[in-house]
Amino acid sequence: VSIEFTIINEIFRRRVRAGDDVLLGIGDDAALTRLPDDSDLVTATDALVAGTHFLTTAPARSVGHRCLAVNLSDLAAMAAEPLWASLALGLPDFDRAWLEDFADGFFALADRYAVRLIGGDTVRSGSLFAAVTVQGCVPRGAVVRRSAASAGDLIYVTGCPGDAAAGRRLATGNPQLPESRVNPMEPLYRQFYFPEPRLAAGKALRSIASAMIDLSDGLHADLGRLLEASGAGASLDVARLPLSIDIRAAFDLPAALELALCGGDDYELCFTVPPDKISLLDGFAERAGCPLTMIGEVCKESGLRWNQSGLNYTVPSSGFEHFE
Amino acid sequence: VSIEFTIINEIFRRRVRAGDDVLLGIGDDAALTRLPDDSDLVTATDALVAGTHFLTTAPARSVGHRCLAVNLSDLAAMAAEPLWASLALGLPDFDRAWLEDFADGFFALADRYAVRLIGGDTVRSGSLFAAVTVQGCVPRGAVVRRSAASAGDLIYVTGCPGDAAAGRRLATGNPQLPESRVNPMEPLYRQFYFPEPRLAAGKALRSIASAMIDLSDGLHADLGRLLEASGAGASLDVARLPLSIDIRAAFDLPAALELALCGGDDYELCFTVPPDKISLLDGFAERAGCPLTMIGEVCKESGLRWNQSGLNYTVPSSGFEHFE
Repeated sequence: VSIEFTIINEIFRRRVRAGDDVLLGIGDDAALTRLPDDSDLVTATDALVAGTHFLTTAPARSVGHRCLAVNLSDLAAMAAEPLWASLALGLPDFDRAWLEDFADGFFALADRYAVRLIGGDTVRSGSLFAAVTVQGCVPRGAVVRRSAASAGDLIYVTGCPGDAAAGRRLATGNPQLPESRVNPMEPLYRQFYFPEPRLAAGKALRSIASAMIDLSDGLHADLGRLLEASGAGASLDVARLPLSIDIRAAFDLPAALELALCGGDDYELCFTVPPDKISLLDGFAERAGCPLTMIGEVCKESGLRWNQSGLNYTVPSSGFEHFE
Repeated sequence: VSIEFTIINEIFRRRVRAGDDVLLGIGDDAALTRLPDDSDLVTATDALVAGTHFLTTAPARSVGHRCLAVNLSDLAAMAAEPLWASLALGLPDFDRAWLEDFADGFFALADRYAVRLIGGDTVRSGSLFAAVTVQGCVPRGAVVRRSAASAGDLIYVTGCPGDAAAGRRLATGNPQLPESRVNPMEPLYRQFYFPEPRLAAGKALRSIASAMIDLSDGLHADLGRLLEASGAGASLDVARLPLSIDIRAAFDLPAALELALCGGDDYELCFTVPPDKISLLDGFAERAGCPLTMIGEVCKESGLRWNQSGLNYTVPSSGFEHFE
């Protein structure tokens, strides 16, 4: 309605790529899209709010990247292929440079995975927020749910959980570390501000993984959800956790373990594989472009039991840290 | 993550109806849904923010109704059938009674049109907001766009544009009127707080309407968009505008006309019909359950020309009133 929101519309609309499956994108009352035959539609919605899910001082490019990445990560965890995104953006004021950077981050990621922005809404809001809905597809029957893990399945995780939370702690200025360590190109910082959704890994796990979830609230909490949905538990070893060189350089072992288990913001995949399918994971890291680590085994008895050198390891109760 | 947001999840999840086309709804990383064969998917996203799109004092039931209604109205304007909704809800604090009322309003409308909530996100936000994405379907080729109106087509509108804006003005306490006139059961007030999306009308207009749009920013602005998208203009008569008895009782004629043309929040449909299809509208009001009025004609020359008793009528430039 206002000139500002017309400009916003232009900032987004001119970056949209065409695609045969988008019959009508931005500009009508709704978008009209077509699914490939014999596919099911997968839909995810996640909202990020300034001060809760990202620092009010976060680079706009990171906010644009993350609001899409966290949604694509949900599609990855269903073994789905992304197709389209819709963006509801709440803005406290009009800052063209901020919006251009936000759009740069959003579209750099969208274009990398051929995701088309098909619509959305831009509204004035006291709190800055970005609510994204993504739609993707999966061949009928190929979806990987949370709820089908069985006792005896092995538990795997992609990447290095904890790095993003470590980056968040660096970015929020943990008194342990001098400010000079907060460098945008530092791996931990990059893992927090620009997490890469594991779409290739998710898709490669069709017909291999028995259950899968993406890590947003921390490995311990999210794996707990998968096991609860599956009516099972797990026995795990903290010594197997793939701690990165970077997290070990910046934090002592207890802090690094806590970040890996409870830190959140990872957007890695955690999944279970039946014993007779383990051999299908040969060469997985190369095919899917991400490291893979076995961290434990599914058991009948409910609950997560973490061990450290043969003793019980008690997961710190700090839980997920928001900015609030 | 917090206990509050677990309860919110329960408030919404227990009201969700089952459906064969929802293979996985709330509770996994994403929802998995199936489209009827030979259909295209229609997606709309609209966000409402407290203070901008609804009064901070608005009844929670109305906020729940409206955040879904404005989206369903977009599907109606595409002649689509609604299927699923996703809700991203930003809350400044946890108020269980407010949330129950919000959910009452949301699900009363959703259930009336068999719309299933398939997912979403609940987040803490300084500003209260509700961002909804709805998905629907339309048989291949049956969609009605904005852009296909032709010179000679007649222009129609459903219902009584202006009533919702009149209700909004009453609710915000226009000094013209005593407070006692603000009555929740009053038709104008109801039209503002509980607009009914014209889904039956939209669907009934497949293969009749050449172009269609829903009225959110006011008849003048939205019809202008339809005509611009169609590369056409229009000649219209303000005397034909269907002013309700209620708006005429509460406002003088100039004020009522301004509300009807510029008030916004109507969620009525405005559409064009080629002359050879006018007879197909016989009995339309009964079939679609809403009144229908012819208000003008599409012309080649761009721009909207409103006439009053044979003279030019200049549309007030007040435009759309938000609460900001």
